[in-house]
Amino acid sequence: MQTLNEHRCFGGTQRFHQHDSAEIGLPMKFALFTPPEPRALLVFLAGLTCTEETFTIKAGAQRLAAELGLALLMPDTSPRGAQVPGEGDSWDFGVGAGFYLDAAREPWAKHWRMESYLMKELLPWVQRETGLARVGLFGHSMGGHGALTLALRHPGRFQSLSAFAPIAAPTRCPWGEKAFSGYLGDDRSTWAAHDASALMAKQAAAPYPGGILVDQGLADKFLADQLHPEAYEAACAAVGQPLTLRRHAGYDHGYYFIASFIDDHLRHHARELLG
Amino acid sequence: MQTLNEHRCFGGTQRFHQHDSAEIGLPMKFALFTPPEPRALLVFLAGLTCTEETFTIKAGAQRLAAELGLALLMPDTSPRGAQVPGEGDSWDFGVGAGFYLDAAREPWAKHWRMESYLMKELLPWVQRETGLARVGLFGHSMGGHGALTLALRHPGRFQSLSAFAPIAAPTRCPWGEKAFSGYLGDDRSTWAAHDASALMAKQAAAPYPGGILVDQGLADKFLADQLHPEAYEAACAAVGQPLTLRRHAGYDHGYYFIASFIDDHLRHHARELLG
Repeated sequence: MQTLNEHRCFGGTQRFHQHDSAEIGLPMKFALFTPPEPRALLVFLAGLTCTEETFTIKAGAQRLAAELGLALLMPDTSPRGAQVPGEGDSWDFGVGAGFYLDAAREPWAKHWRMESYLMKELLPWVQRETGLARVGLFGHSMGGHGALTLALRHPGRFQSLSAFAPIAAPTRCPWGEKAFSGYLGDDRSTWAAHDASALMAKQAAAPYPGGILVDQGLADKFLADQLHPEAYEAACAAVGQPLTLRRHAGYDHGYYFIASFIDDHLRHHARELLG
Repeated sequence: MQTLNEHRCFGGTQRFHQHDSAEIGLPMKFALFTPPEPRALLVFLAGLTCTEETFTIKAGAQRLAAELGLALLMPDTSPRGAQVPGEGDSWDFGVGAGFYLDAAREPWAKHWRMESYLMKELLPWVQRETGLARVGLFGHSMGGHGALTLALRHPGRFQSLSAFAPIAAPTRCPWGEKAFSGYLGDDRSTWAAHDASALMAKQAAAPYPGGILVDQGLADKFLADQLHPEAYEAACAAVGQPLTLRRHAGYDHGYYFIASFIDDHLRHHARELLG
């Protein structure tokens, strides 16, 4: 584990690390903010084209995280440097577009193992290093998909959940169809296990009884075709999962939207994680 | 005046504009944040290599600015596209390094007119558009130099002043010597009019009786050779100018440092601008 650089920030420390990932088979980077008095860990999964730096630089999360005692973990969004043919041809598939799942289809299956990387390697390492037992999960767009799916695929692993403009029903949108057919294959029966709305609809009881927070901008140019928060809303209603889905007039898909509401998410997680 | 893009942000609007500058003779970009209820204008001058985007994205200033009613103006740091030979050879001279003055020496004198651009063109335009009469000024590093010098070179034009890690005595540091010899020429007698400490030392009375705020990180790798806050401190003391110079252990020269203390600067300006 190598520290690439570190910066004093709101009385805590913002570090950027690199390590050789066994799950990915390549070096991976991540960012970790440690507040002055860490009490719980909050993992943010970023969207298409982003890196471990994006949220770290743009969201303005460290101020309130420092105050609340939340450590922040920002992973990268895909393997890099695999040199899989075509990996850089699209901004919504391949590099920067790992979709937080383990690919089953070649040539992606060897390196594109973001779910195993996060759940079996990075998160355990960070928890060991920080000694933080309780973990919250949130994300944006593709990372909102990642948060909403991993939080249901790994019951009990996370104690709080939220998302910004998530891809909430990827089996029925162009981004999801492209990613799932490419990474998982053409058998759509394997896709539902990675669709937040389908996963929620199958729950026997509310997995997050304290509630899930989702923010969505109504001037988001991807809302109509790619995101489908109404599908997630319906699935939550069907299983009795408390959901606060806020629709914000005028806000778009970007980090000015995220920054505007980040404090509400941090407080939501602090409430669930710290009581 | 062209709007390149705009984003809803903390109930206000973050816009990026481009216009053909008469003073610069080239298109110039700037960013403007308008809070829900604008009460005063605060201008931020950025450092070497930065653009109008840097502070806008990284500082986390919009949250409290929206609350306090401060509009934020973020100009670019130099002309771009002039195609002056060598303009891109250095990161500390030429493109991205306008030093907020009017160059007197060729080949820079034609386009490198950042002081006239800001004072005669951009600031009047923004004040006309927003109807905001009271204006504060702050900046970082080269932009801290810009803020501390323009605030004394234009008496009465600004009602509040602060800086992060300013180049506080450029006539006696490598960055300043390179810039001033290149832009102003080898006659050092012309340099003092653009040196914050020299300008302050010549004041007959405190120009900012409400006080000036300067923050400086003690892990700033440029502190020893380039910044010289102690020279500015001595000049302020000599003329009775109230100065709060805070030295912060562990903080470096970057935007994690700025973000950590931005709220204090916004409150300082709001106090002076809004009472």
